[in-house]
Amino acid sequence: MTAVIGTDPTHATTGTPREGAFGNASHLVCRACGAQSPLGPFYACMECFGPLEVGYDFPTITRAQIEAGPKSIWRYQPLLPVPADIASFRSTDPGFTRLVDAGNLAAELGLRKFHVKDDSGNPTHSFKDRVVAVALSAARELGLQVLACPSTGNLANAVAAAAARAGIRSVVLVPSNLEQQKILASAVYDTTLIAIEGNYDDVNKLASEIAGEEEGWAFVNVNVRPYYAEGSKTLAFEIAEQLGWRLPDQIVVPVASGSQLTKIDKGITELIKLGLVEEKPVRIFGAQATGCSPVSQAYRDGYDVVRPVKPDTIAKSLAIGNPADGPYVLDVARRTGGRIVDVDDETVVANIRRLARTEGIFGETAGGVTLGCVAKLIADGDLDPDAETVMINSGDGLKTLDAVAGQVGPKTTIRPSYEQFADFWKGLEA
Amino acid sequence: MTAVIGTDPTHATTGTPREGAFGNASHLVCRACGAQSPLGPFYACMECFGPLEVGYDFPTITRAQIEAGPKSIWRYQPLLPVPADIASFRSTDPGFTRLVDAGNLAAELGLRKFHVKDDSGNPTHSFKDRVVAVALSAARELGLQVLACPSTGNLANAVAAAAARAGIRSVVLVPSNLEQQKILASAVYDTTLIAIEGNYDDVNKLASEIAGEEEGWAFVNVNVRPYYAEGSKTLAFEIAEQLGWRLPDQIVVPVASGSQLTKIDKGITELIKLGLVEEKPVRIFGAQATGCSPVSQAYRDGYDVVRPVKPDTIAKSLAIGNPADGPYVLDVARRTGGRIVDVDDETVVANIRRLARTEGIFGETAGGVTLGCVAKLIADGDLDPDAETVMINSGDGLKTLDAVAGQVGPKTTIRPSYEQFADFWKGLEA
Repeated sequence: MTAVIGTDPTHATTGTPREGAFGNASHLVCRACGAQSPLGPFYACMECFGPLEVGYDFPTITRAQIEAGPKSIWRYQPLLPVPADIASFRSTDPGFTRLVDAGNLAAELGLRKFHVKDDSGNPTHSFKDRVVAVALSAARELGLQVLACPSTGNLANAVAAAAARAGIRSVVLVPSNLEQQKILASAVYDTTLIAIEGNYDDVNKLASEIAGEEEGWAFVNVNVRPYYAEGSKTLAFEIAEQLGWRLPDQIVVPVASGSQLTKIDKGITELIKLGLVEEKPVRIFGAQATGCSPVSQAYRDGYDVVRPVKPDTIAKSLAIGNPADGPYVLDVARRTGGRIVDVDDETVVANIRRLARTEGIFGETAGGVTLGCVAKLIADGDLDPDAETVMINSGDGLKTLDAVAGQVGPKTTIRPSYEQFADFWKGLEA
Repeated sequence: MTAVIGTDPTHATTGTPREGAFGNASHLVCRACGAQSPLGPFYACMECFGPLEVGYDFPTITRAQIEAGPKSIWRYQPLLPVPADIASFRSTDPGFTRLVDAGNLAAELGLRKFHVKDDSGNPTHSFKDRVVAVALSAARELGLQVLACPSTGNLANAVAAAAARAGIRSVVLVPSNLEQQKILASAVYDTTLIAIEGNYDDVNKLASEIAGEEEGWAFVNVNVRPYYAEGSKTLAFEIAEQLGWRLPDQIVVPVASGSQLTKIDKGITELIKLGLVEEKPVRIFGAQATGCSPVSQAYRDGYDVVRPVKPDTIAKSLAIGNPADGPYVLDVARRTGGRIVDVDDETVVANIRRLARTEGIFGETAGGVTLGCVAKLIADGDLDPDAETVMINSGDGLKTLDAVAGQVGPKTTIRPSYEQFADFWKGLEA
């Protein structure tokens, strides 16, 4: 099995993958014009250059079959573009993270039933482990030899860790002015980390160029993006299974490229189609930081397309000014009765602290964005407080400690003396 | 149900806990003289002041019963001092972390079969979530109102998060010169974080004083320590269950207070006694950093007791100079055919990197200590390379980023140009 990506990134040539390399996936389909392509390292439609996504020919799939699987996203193998023997390959085995019944938050927010899907429990502590694991499988089945990405954080961690575990090469491109701690957290996996003198847009552009020029590379979010994106469906699958094979009424999802939101919607549709859950309407809401809110702005203005913005927010993991899935996010929100909103950075920090204080979950800035938007949607009357609601916490506060610096700290500093302690404590009690 | 801790911390008075408050636990027993005490907020023997541990009157417990439980440590409720309805209380629900089949590491180290029990997947990313969850239950059942600890890191995170989720007060005492990032990662949960002008020993001493003077406090690692320590047994339970209800031949465990190691041994003994696994010898090895290796030194010198040391190592989470369980660790190692060894800080860093490079697991310094000791034990001929071996990774590299600073980083810095990239890449390939 060999595969070579040619110089035209949209029409790469490839060897023939083995039978069943992509499980029940049967083809790629253009999200713009509906034209079909064969499964391969393709990401743009040959007819209209629209984005491709994975199509399936599903057999009967049962709850029992899924429940008998491993405690990771691979239990959903029949619903993903991965082979039946996926669990036998070395991967970080992400997923099956906690769905926290957030009763304290529900009480504070005035919601009847509220859950936090806490993806900080993944191997590198963000939802990116899910998408990278599926991209890694596609790269392997297509015979690609290098796993790569442009990134400023979570994706770099996930790619570097997954490639290390799989024993393949990885290349991570980051802006050279990235914070030292973020560089360390990826470089430790011995990835080929390349610092680029430029901003994230420059890095991204270079990545696309490399994907077009070099043979055998899998840029997870570029030329194997259709497979990569399918990984986000597992958030919907897990939420449904963890609720007892039942859908919630409302889901609030952070929006960067928008892919997580659209694939959660796709996952819900597939669960219903396969009879794994009872059909019911699920309203899907999107959350952005005001400093990078192109989709929220487009929603508010009633547009179908998204006008790019220059990001300026502490929520770096959501700071994509020109989101690839923007129009599709607008469509999902409008179709399901959801909405896209944004909150400012001060609100983001307040809600990182709220999530930690009420539920003991330390989310990254994206978690603060999402919880802030939940509160805003309640205040605006958009979220039904009597309906069962789920929010996604997509990453870990340990990666964005700067956001709370100067905001939290010791309540007092004392000498190591019981008397000093007792004075302080009496003051607190009074 | 009320409970009051009196002024004598070893003989506190208490109300009567509800029936079944401690599950199958039936009494406390002195590890030194064997005298029994009733279940209560006691930690020192009334006869000899020796340390107390929890004793049980186990009924028949089956694998099926455990497997039907929640995907957290609460599936082992019948083996812990917690009530049958424990899962209905708000906790961080730690445990059931990955047991990684570390084939890449096994190949590099020359081991036939090697697994890493990766406790960085816990809610606050260390094994401390396990022990704190059990301590929290004991505090609740004993009617104590404040969850507290002295700590320099992982324990503070775990206590603050667990108390937030449970909706009770917490107090965390830390040295005032603790790194800002460690203060942030606890303070974000809105715990009463008190900075103490002194070193960890001063902080610890003050904690014991407060535990003795104040009513209603549960210092997790002081006055409810017997319950707290039982949480570490779940590491043994999970390893056995995840191996298919089978014990490994050798386990390598980091040693700070030594409690994790002795309770893993206790957990193994209980599994065998209850017929949940087939009886077989399991050799238990301990790992320390040379800069704080009192137990390793005592082992080498053939002593039964441990001479306190002043810690000087980057492995701060293992830097307990006067380990409470020291003598018991020596006993377990000698009884099971294990050994206690230590490695220097340079080796620690090299093995943090090795774990990340080979298996995509970014462990904290304690993980580097433990893997470094695995390699040393192989080199010294102490670990049988043909026997199945498990090591514990007890925490997360994101909490000890400083350890790899200056050690890893970009392989190159280039302008955002394909030509510059291609030149670099050709050089790498050459």
